[in-house]
Amino acid sequence: MSDKKINTEEIGQPALGRRRFMNSAALAGLTLGAVACSDKPGTAAPASASGPAPAGHEGGVANATHLKPGELDTYYGLWSGGHTGDMRVLGMPSGREIHRIPCFVPDALVGWGLTNESKKIMGTKADGSLKYTVADTHHTHASYKDGNYDGRYAWINDKINSRIARIRLDYFICDKITELPNVQGFHGIFPDKADPVDPKINYTTRVFCGGEFSTPLPNTVGSEDGSTYHSLFTCVDAESMEVRWQVLIDGNCDLTATSYDGKLAATNQYNTEMGVKYEDMMSAERDSCLFFNIARIEAAVKAGKFKTYGDSKVPVVDGTRASNKDAKTALTAYVSVPKNPHGVNASPDAKYFICAGKLSPTGTVIELAKMLDYFDGKLESPDKAIVAEVELGLGPLHTAFDGRGNAYTTLFLDSQIVKWNIEAAIKFHGGDKSAKYVVDRLDVQYQPGHLSASQSETRAADGKFLAVGCKFSKDRFLPVGPLHPENEQFVDISGDKMVLLADHPVRSEPHDFIIFKRELLSPKQVYQLDEFPNAIKDPKESGVFRKGNKVEVRLTSQAPAFSMREFKLKKGDVVTLTLTNLDKVEDLTHGFAIPKYNVNFIVNPQETASVTFVADKPGVYWCYCTHFCHALHLEMRTRMIVEA
Amino acid sequence: MSDKKINTEEIGQPALGRRRFMNSAALAGLTLGAVACSDKPGTAAPASASGPAPAGHEGGVANATHLKPGELDTYYGLWSGGHTGDMRVLGMPSGREIHRIPCFVPDALVGWGLTNESKKIMGTKADGSLKYTVADTHHTHASYKDGNYDGRYAWINDKINSRIARIRLDYFICDKITELPNVQGFHGIFPDKADPVDPKINYTTRVFCGGEFSTPLPNTVGSEDGSTYHSLFTCVDAESMEVRWQVLIDGNCDLTATSYDGKLAATNQYNTEMGVKYEDMMSAERDSCLFFNIARIEAAVKAGKFKTYGDSKVPVVDGTRASNKDAKTALTAYVSVPKNPHGVNASPDAKYFICAGKLSPTGTVIELAKMLDYFDGKLESPDKAIVAEVELGLGPLHTAFDGRGNAYTTLFLDSQIVKWNIEAAIKFHGGDKSAKYVVDRLDVQYQPGHLSASQSETRAADGKFLAVGCKFSKDRFLPVGPLHPENEQFVDISGDKMVLLADHPVRSEPHDFIIFKRELLSPKQVYQLDEFPNAIKDPKESGVFRKGNKVEVRLTSQAPAFSMREFKLKKGDVVTLTLTNLDKVEDLTHGFAIPKYNVNFIVNPQETASVTFVADKPGVYWCYCTHFCHALHLEMRTRMIVEA
Repeated sequence: MSDKKINTEEIGQPALGRRRFMNSAALAGLTLGAVACSDKPGTAAPASASGPAPAGHEGGVANATHLKPGELDTYYGLWSGGHTGDMRVLGMPSGREIHRIPCFVPDALVGWGLTNESKKIMGTKADGSLKYTVADTHHTHASYKDGNYDGRYAWINDKINSRIARIRLDYFICDKITELPNVQGFHGIFPDKADPVDPKINYTTRVFCGGEFSTPLPNTVGSEDGSTYHSLFTCVDAESMEVRWQVLIDGNCDLTATSYDGKLAATNQYNTEMGVKYEDMMSAERDSCLFFNIARIEAAVKAGKFKTYGDSKVPVVDGTRASNKDAKTALTAYVSVPKNPHGVNASPDAKYFICAGKLSPTGTVIELAKMLDYFDGKLESPDKAIVAEVELGLGPLHTAFDGRGNAYTTLFLDSQIVKWNIEAAIKFHGGDKSAKYVVDRLDVQYQPGHLSASQSETRAADGKFLAVGCKFSKDRFLPVGPLHPENEQFVDISGDKMVLLADHPVRSEPHDFIIFKRELLSPKQVYQLDEFPNAIKDPKESGVFRKGNKVEVRLTSQAPAFSMREFKLKKGDVVTLTLTNLDKVEDLTHGFAIPKYNVNFIVNPQETASVTFVADKPGVYWCYCTHFCHALHLEMRTRMIVEA
Repeated sequence: MSDKKINTEEIGQPALGRRRFMNSAALAGLTLGAVACSDKPGTAAPASASGPAPAGHEGGVANATHLKPGELDTYYGLWSGGHTGDMRVLGMPSGREIHRIPCFVPDALVGWGLTNESKKIMGTKADGSLKYTVADTHHTHASYKDGNYDGRYAWINDKINSRIARIRLDYFICDKITELPNVQGFHGIFPDKADPVDPKINYTTRVFCGGEFSTPLPNTVGSEDGSTYHSLFTCVDAESMEVRWQVLIDGNCDLTATSYDGKLAATNQYNTEMGVKYEDMMSAERDSCLFFNIARIEAAVKAGKFKTYGDSKVPVVDGTRASNKDAKTALTAYVSVPKNPHGVNASPDAKYFICAGKLSPTGTVIELAKMLDYFDGKLESPDKAIVAEVELGLGPLHTAFDGRGNAYTTLFLDSQIVKWNIEAAIKFHGGDKSAKYVVDRLDVQYQPGHLSASQSETRAADGKFLAVGCKFSKDRFLPVGPLHPENEQFVDISGDKMVLLADHPVRSEPHDFIIFKRELLSPKQVYQLDEFPNAIKDPKESGVFRKGNKVEVRLTSQAPAFSMREFKLKKGDVVTLTLTNLDKVEDLTHGFAIPKYNVNFIVNPQETASVTFVADKPGVYWCYCTHFCHALHLEMRTRMIVEA
């Protein structure tokens, strides 16, 4: 097989010659070869495709990630939860998962999607049931101030249903979810880092969202003609979570990046062809990195130069190529980058966006100062902002940074991370063929997707740790049936050579994540009663309050008892049960389950939550505390007596 | 405060004097003091209540649990997932979570609760929606042969809705769920280890289930009178998962244990008082460990000596005290054990059941040979089977074993594990006050519930590792808001002294678990097409098959494409979409999401799954692969075109 031949060739530096771009047929074959053509664990991954990795990479540094019992991690990690629709919180360098924050999908522990409070955030249909119960989270990023995380918010996207959720980083809870209008396949997400106009606003006020799948606008007719489809790039207000504006574009959006000065955002485009079949989507040799001039877009919106689509009232400005030919007035600029680029990442020195080629073995470095020159009419073409386009290896996807001028790019097909120096790459691209831009290569296991380093996409990138999400784990863990975990690997990047520290299995499939110093957050461990308008502040306020068949049951919890030992209902009652946890001690959470009534939720210290149900089954139901709280936890119950 | 005074007293061995039993008031105060009265992390846990732990316990053994990248664990752990209603699969000694097996609660990754196949297992209401979406899993145990795990099945319970799920340990999937009739608060669960009559059946054929909350039988009237309530002990057939029989008892069931010879099962009873308020439940100084004579129960069922309750056809035999006074014919025997016992565990030498006192600081050792003597009429009282009742510390809950004659019991209030020698305890109880039965104590962080050791409840207990589920983590991990993780701690028990190895945070709240050698399982990594009657075995069989508005969409997946590039539907069609993954390579799973239609599920290699939905929204919907499979994964899509 010719693809096997390619697969075992050495990827030298700098000459890749004919492999510079792969044609469609070879690529399809190659990737099957890499991923799918072997059923022997360990041999399927083309880890050796680029020649042996430098010595000293294996085995890890003893204890570097193993904390002693009781020792705290030094970094937080916020991870997308993948199909479980939540956000994962990890401690680094141990890699321990400390928390999961429910967002888009019901969570049976918390009662997320069951309590009235969470249903209001998630969104319901006319009949009161949840609008969506599945999700596909990909990217998570946090709010910035002065180019570093400020600990206010994080955001995460749901690709399936085009939703964005906001996480409060004081309580580690989701407080808002917004569904983007006229968008299908919402993929990339990135907050801005400053206002493009007002220098005093040196913090996040907008979140940008890339729409990946093109559809008819509005999508109310089943049109087959792909040439009539469009994608939108969306701006969401960081505080109100309302959609501010959208941009109609040519091609599609994939990942998203923002500049440190707030002036520019960008999305890479893997399907400038607007193909509806995968061969068509990969037919062109170059696609784009699409830049948005934020100040001009907002001026256009303010000037009323927009359309709306369907039921949406959101202003949509025109960012297509045809309408943006004059650089001095253009809202957008399409920079040509090689074949089906996948990631776009902003370097911590605020100078560059880097696109990874995916179907081209290259990384493209775009200088942001030159992009501003282009929008000022000082550069003849946006492509002139490309200051490097260098060969990295097969299947480059995403790039992280160490703050010392180096970039780390995942090579999906080579199952490697390549460490490369950006300024050296620029020199090499500029003609200095003696510039050795590749610094190191590390085999990973296997097929890496996203990677990120400690403080990677901030001005405070510190080059300590790097994590990489490997899509296949194959033989790296004990077998657990047909569904394999993915493999998150942790790497020490503090020295010249990367050192693999640890393998961590993870349920499929997280994508992007950020890692930052623990000092940047100030979490609160106990709620305040006043934050809940329906709080029951005194056990004496407990009781059953009836208006016809509408019944309010008001309860409090204090270990080891609920404030009422029993309460009576009549068959057919429509019951809203509200529970306030009056315990104030950190970590003293209670649960509340009603057997056969499909109710279970928790109340953390000083939290209030409510559920609504119909008392349709007569009998005695022991409502019990499901969250271990006390030596008499098992005995902590109240009887719900439903009279026939 | 008097409880504070108690709390700081030294628990000496052997004299505990007046603390032998705590009265209700003191206990309620004490436990609040222990758990809830301090808001300073680290000081709240009464870890020092029993005096300083022996030296050399802290800090862990460097690298003992940190595996090098690529190194495999040597033990599997099967863990209850708690409120997430699934089973967790861990590797030990690393403590890494390799898998979660969805059971009682929908899982948005797999499509569990969304696919027709999983809905059939979970159970639906008349309208096709799921009967239950919440659960509270507590105990997990696996099938036995010759006194060790045989790798066929595991079981797990849902306490909220009285369900038992079976896990196939070849594919690591749930294949059956049974709801127990007339049971509320199904808590303990244990498979038998042999047949009580047929010695050739030296493997598991029954699973025993303890019903914790007493209710009217049948529970159709809201009776307030607790004295009319009853609990049932249930036997489920391990193969058919049908309920074989139940036993009406006095008092309640809590945890469950079985003997190695198959003749006896037991449940501890914390509420022999049949109280409906917690003070009443703890009013008596002694409760019971209730033994069941399995052969006699099955003979009684066979002889037709049973009742049925309500709609249930399950035979219920009479195991109350009043009906079982004659030992020679008794189906049950109530052994008196101290105050609100919590755990009952079978020692690996097959000789003893051990009950932990919870509200008494004692462990009770019951000799099984003597229990058989009792049922044979050779022992005047079942209480004579108690061969030791020794003081261990405050709040004893569960016991594990090392196969060298030692027991390890969690002390919830003391936040300790106590290691004690069973034969020495028997000698001490027999009058030899020089017998030092307490071997070691280890402080744990904090308030431990379940614990288990490698191979603990098998004849092959190997005394290597022990894990303990601490209910409070307080200050042991980075703060993540009001909901704290629990703390699973791993301990080296291979030497005389226990050594704490590692802390692992875990989402609330797992309870019981088992740990066993990896050689005992032979998982399968790829399905067989023939296992799915609706499999599409050839891409050529793909298509849209219409009968009126009932439409079948049949699709296959092979990276990087689905077998149809698009398919057309009409608004209002009732669609069943079936997808077979024809990829055969291990780890090559595909996903299938339909935007806005709330559909997402996966198909593992050679697996078939289907979903049914109404095509109620016209437009173009890009169904896409949600499980990273290939370099062209992003491009792996099919268009669902719904015509208005």
